[in-house]
Amino acid sequence: MDKPIGVIDSGVGGLTVVHELMRQLPREKLIYLGDTLRCPYGPRTPEEIRGFTWEMVEFLLTKDIKMLVIACNTATAYTLSELQEQLTIPVVGVIQPGARAAIKSTINNHVGIIGTEGTVRSKAYSIALNMIKPNLNISALACPAFVPLVEQGMLSGNVAMKTVEESLFALRDFKAMDTLILGCTHYPLLKDVIQEVVGPQVTLISSSEETARETSTILEVNQLLNEGLAPCYHQFYTTGDVDMFTTLTKRIFNSSIDNLRSVSIEKAVI
Amino acid sequence: MDKPIGVIDSGVGGLTVVHELMRQLPREKLIYLGDTLRCPYGPRTPEEIRGFTWEMVEFLLTKDIKMLVIACNTATAYTLSELQEQLTIPVVGVIQPGARAAIKSTINNHVGIIGTEGTVRSKAYSIALNMIKPNLNISALACPAFVPLVEQGMLSGNVAMKTVEESLFALRDFKAMDTLILGCTHYPLLKDVIQEVVGPQVTLISSSEETARETSTILEVNQLLNEGLAPCYHQFYTTGDVDMFTTLTKRIFNSSIDNLRSVSIEKAVI
Repeated sequence: MDKPIGVIDSGVGGLTVVHELMRQLPREKLIYLGDTLRCPYGPRTPEEIRGFTWEMVEFLLTKDIKMLVIACNTATAYTLSELQEQLTIPVVGVIQPGARAAIKSTINNHVGIIGTEGTVRSKAYSIALNMIKPNLNISALACPAFVPLVEQGMLSGNVAMKTVEESLFALRDFKAMDTLILGCTHYPLLKDVIQEVVGPQVTLISSSEETARETSTILEVNQLLNEGLAPCYHQFYTTGDVDMFTTLTKRIFNSSIDNLRSVSIEKAVI
Repeated sequence: MDKPIGVIDSGVGGLTVVHELMRQLPREKLIYLGDTLRCPYGPRTPEEIRGFTWEMVEFLLTKDIKMLVIACNTATAYTLSELQEQLTIPVVGVIQPGARAAIKSTINNHVGIIGTEGTVRSKAYSIALNMIKPNLNISALACPAFVPLVEQGMLSGNVAMKTVEESLFALRDFKAMDTLILGCTHYPLLKDVIQEVVGPQVTLISSSEETARETSTILEVNQLLNEGLAPCYHQFYTTGDVDMFTTLTKRIFNSSIDNLRSVSIEKAVI
């Protein structure tokens, strides 16, 4: 089926999921919508997060998507269940794939989670892990310095190393855990530095990689894979300023995005 | 939802999938059916394989399963599509999860596959890989000596090492691949030996681990996870001799199985 996959995020972090979708599902057409105008979602009320997310979803539904990927931890935490219940297309969030990969990976049942303050406070990963496998030993740590680091393009070098070291120092028991979930879509961009700091005995789980992997699973089981030729292009939308989005993606991903358009999705405007 | 997950296999190899389902989904109740009477399926005609598999499925449907796992490479190769089309419950096979994990894992796009002669001849893994990601470099090798090795309980030691070394020698280009799919449910039991032979630079993909992981995904997306207490027991059925099944599982898994019963599933008998 050659309909596109819809991907939503509060900003640009979800592009790490897009990157993995392109790599793991090169035949699939993608439509990305980043709500940069109202980013970040972390400090918003649950009602705002739900409202904004539904506005994004309704916009993508007009594009006839065959599946929805919520590439945003906050939006996943607050809206996944209701979207799965109310939409007729499959919906995957960014939290559960990381949780499932961690359960597969861990041998000693000690799993670490790092994410934004909002994600850690929501306990969404712990809930997802425990719902499937109770009695895991879970250590969670907010790393508020990581997103600014990534958005400034500092993905390696001394400053990155020092910031990561200092942030993860608080996770004192990280030597005991054998699996660490990178519970924020920005964090896979710091993977090399984080791996160096935690050591080779810890398996890092990238929610972006795992979400793309599970998108692949869900498409196949629902017989929705595109069996035709690869798409010529993907589409990108931002609710904010195109130039700002472009600058940010160039800085982070070291590449530019074609087919980027600005769109207004607020209910009153539509 | 506290209904059981049904698992079918031509024999005992699918118990590696059961082992992983228990580890990764400890709250789920399992019903396993091994068609040991008519095992192995490899040399059978496609019509026989389809007929036998449908007989297994019909038996498990009477047990009110919420999902079906085809823990047998041959049965997956010949019946997955029609089962996905015709059953109203989700169906996952043992081939696609390994293929998807390999696509996620490989960096240099060179993937190896080892399996039984039947599996390699069917090209099922190559087809599954290429359907999702064309232009992969794929090397496949049949390792007919591995299943007898496992069924004799020789999972480590000199004989195991020598057999694995000799078998994999034919895969001369294995130094170029960065990912190797263990495309037979028996092979994860030889994982340590295989890893030693191919070296640490090759990521081994266990179809059993990956199938359990994807079962977890599919249950959640379809809102079928058991949110209640863990089950007290699982159920095991064999179409063959209970003592032989028990001896084999003791030898391979070094543990015995409770709740094992013999059952006749042939159409004429039912």
